[in-house]
Amino acid sequence: MKVSIPKGMRDFSPQVMAKRNYIFDTIRKSFQLYGFEQIETPTMENRETLTGKYGEEGDSLIFNVLQRGDKLSKALTNAELKAAEKADFEDLKFFNRNVANLADMALRYDLTVPFARYVVQHQNDISFPFKRYQIQPVWRADRPQKGRYREFYQCDADIIGSDSLLNEIELVKLFDEVLSNLGLKSFTIKLNNRKILSGIAEVIGRSEMIVPITVAIDKLEKIGLEKVNEELTQRGLSDMELNKIQPLFKIKGSNDEKLGQLAEFLKDSEIGLKGIEETRFILNTVYSTGLNKANLEVDVTLARGLDYYTGAIFEVVSNEVKMGSICGGGRYADLTGIFGLPNMSGVGISFGADRIYDVMDELKLFPESARVATQVLFINFGYKEAAYCLKVLQVLRGKCIRTELYPDAAKMKKQMKYANDKRIPFVVMVGEDEMNSGQLSVKNMENGEQSKVSVSELVNSLSL
Amino acid sequence: MKVSIPKGMRDFSPQVMAKRNYIFDTIRKSFQLYGFEQIETPTMENRETLTGKYGEEGDSLIFNVLQRGDKLSKALTNAELKAAEKADFEDLKFFNRNVANLADMALRYDLTVPFARYVVQHQNDISFPFKRYQIQPVWRADRPQKGRYREFYQCDADIIGSDSLLNEIELVKLFDEVLSNLGLKSFTIKLNNRKILSGIAEVIGRSEMIVPITVAIDKLEKIGLEKVNEELTQRGLSDMELNKIQPLFKIKGSNDEKLGQLAEFLKDSEIGLKGIEETRFILNTVYSTGLNKANLEVDVTLARGLDYYTGAIFEVVSNEVKMGSICGGGRYADLTGIFGLPNMSGVGISFGADRIYDVMDELKLFPESARVATQVLFINFGYKEAAYCLKVLQVLRGKCIRTELYPDAAKMKKQMKYANDKRIPFVVMVGEDEMNSGQLSVKNMENGEQSKVSVSELVNSLSL
Repeated sequence: MKVSIPKGMRDFSPQVMAKRNYIFDTIRKSFQLYGFEQIETPTMENRETLTGKYGEEGDSLIFNVLQRGDKLSKALTNAELKAAEKADFEDLKFFNRNVANLADMALRYDLTVPFARYVVQHQNDISFPFKRYQIQPVWRADRPQKGRYREFYQCDADIIGSDSLLNEIELVKLFDEVLSNLGLKSFTIKLNNRKILSGIAEVIGRSEMIVPITVAIDKLEKIGLEKVNEELTQRGLSDMELNKIQPLFKIKGSNDEKLGQLAEFLKDSEIGLKGIEETRFILNTVYSTGLNKANLEVDVTLARGLDYYTGAIFEVVSNEVKMGSICGGGRYADLTGIFGLPNMSGVGISFGADRIYDVMDELKLFPESARVATQVLFINFGYKEAAYCLKVLQVLRGKCIRTELYPDAAKMKKQMKYANDKRIPFVVMVGEDEMNSGQLSVKNMENGEQSKVSVSELVNSLSL
Repeated sequence: MKVSIPKGMRDFSPQVMAKRNYIFDTIRKSFQLYGFEQIETPTMENRETLTGKYGEEGDSLIFNVLQRGDKLSKALTNAELKAAEKADFEDLKFFNRNVANLADMALRYDLTVPFARYVVQHQNDISFPFKRYQIQPVWRADRPQKGRYREFYQCDADIIGSDSLLNEIELVKLFDEVLSNLGLKSFTIKLNNRKILSGIAEVIGRSEMIVPITVAIDKLEKIGLEKVNEELTQRGLSDMELNKIQPLFKIKGSNDEKLGQLAEFLKDSEIGLKGIEETRFILNTVYSTGLNKANLEVDVTLARGLDYYTGAIFEVVSNEVKMGSICGGGRYADLTGIFGLPNMSGVGISFGADRIYDVMDELKLFPESARVATQVLFINFGYKEAAYCLKVLQVLRGKCIRTELYPDAAKMKKQMKYANDKRIPFVVMVGEDEMNSGQLSVKNMENGEQSKVSVSELVNSLSL
């Protein structure tokens, strides 16, 4: 019998869970500190809620769930089924078209679309601006590879129903707060604005080419100016247009200097200047309140989410571990329009728990508290001793000390190995002597020292 | 556009999430206190891992996930597909048989089978006895109805690799600990043993009828002795066999008295007497260490999980709210045999979070801490004031006080309504005067009182 799990999926052992929970707990605590409230949405959404929201490639990665029982039978007796009798079964497209009739539910692909659906469905019960956080798994039928899974957690915080830039400022501070609390010593929050990118395309006179232009700019560091210009020519920029864009490639310096040069470049684009103004406001206000460990960097090559972001765009990278972005986010002017509630501006960020985990693991940032589970193991010498220990266990647990009694009167070696494997720091042995004297033998598993203590001394030495 | 979620599924609002988290956190804390370690398994398992484990009805309630892309095409070009050309499409069974070719993954139906699969797959990395807990949702394509959902959380704690009854004792105490901590004042842990039920069937001479006999006994209170006897006759018990069983119906009294009468009834059944001995041992040891709020009750009509439990059987009911069982569990002698690892005895319990929620909601047992999210809202009077407030926010958050600034300089009434809706207990107003004096105006939203305080006074009054 083959015992395995589907590819791209993972089991999490107690050791890994302890570390993951340390990340989730830290994120959750900061989300709450900033006034975000938790919601959860169902694992399954109606198919039509998800399809058409993630582009053609995204759509093809959505997991569909088969209808059950009655509904499946009904789906299979409908008109499409009759048509099947005459269909050419060599034509696989027939089946692909008809998958929709077998599946009317799908697994959530991200947390943003279900959130938009939630807001529209419960709009009368929500007090706007609505600050919600959500920490749940999502599923994507991606080709599994190192660091890319078919099931992974997203940790999102969004504010919907307010277009104030104070929200962007709070979210930048939230990045700083969470990642500093997790122990990261050097990371950069990259900042861009969709309006700046629109301005660049406008200034060149090719607004429709915003995406390819941005993509080409993005390659500057990797392939050099000459190749970028070649690419832009290939994509249809005239020599004149190419000339116009050249000053952009020379922008450098501090954030202030970059924004100054950019303002000169964008001086004829109203939307571009608006983007600069927003970025300056965010930067200045964040700086005025101070930051923990984060660096802020204006980066006009940042092109994340151009399909939906309309204002600020965020991305966070570790400066200590090469890993790609560990967080992202941005402003979307009309999040809920797709579900019939227009003009709700939103801005949100997402923490990539898996990548943050890998960064922290490499830098050994997980504290001891994310490791120790049980604090005290009582050795089992037989029923009489165990019955005595059960009462001591009760006292310790009453003081919130995580305690267990080995369930079987197994060989000492086996019980000690159990304590070692579980990394339990203290082992208590209670035999005839200890029961008579009330002085328990305690072994410190780290240094091997053994001592005799009363129950209350044991409690005192272990309580925080 | 219809905006909805699939039937049997739920959105959880911030108010409900806060209460649910209170339950999960309490359960989790106790699980850890008793030395259980958390694992998580993937949402999707290979179909063959789940099918054939839950009986025919259970199997039909498993949600199947469609293959994607390549795999779907391959499934549709195989031999079965060729056969489809000739098939009678009126015959729905053809499709039902072939669903297996469209889906090779399924959503987890409970936490026990994935746990068994986990143990077998990772047996070389596990130190036995393995005490694991798991809090994750499961999915069942049940007919949705009040209190029954297609997606719901299970909270399980199991010990595998030890047949010591100390495990049963710890689990009974864990029921008591968790439910007492949640504030339940009166609940009963019902206790039975599969061996007692086997003994009863053996004494009557109809071992194979253990299930119908138990089911009939279970109806005694509801339908009375005469009807129960009628049913047993209908099910094939002879008059002599019926006579033999009569003393069982007269068993009553305290747990000790019940076990005494039962021992008399089962005096010729070795397995039956073993069940009594086990039950006595569990009861006596639990009583000797004391209980919080739980009542223990021996109940020979308890027939939960007869398909797989081999020893102790548990069920917990509230005595204050009529609700059915809120927790359950039992001993299974061979949990992992189905996956090729025989002779691993396990015992486990499960907390039904949804029913516990309903009981607590009806009894108003959720504490204030499960309600308040943000503690302080700063009113937004415009940019200058907001910039001032951001710095104060930072101080408060540094002291772990959950604080937010209303993002827009909206009308006072709107901002106060937001505080009310979110049940934020304190509102701070900072205008020109307050910025000059450093004395912030604070309004207590519960009693309407307003006062002027410094930032450090505000911190002191809000810190725990």
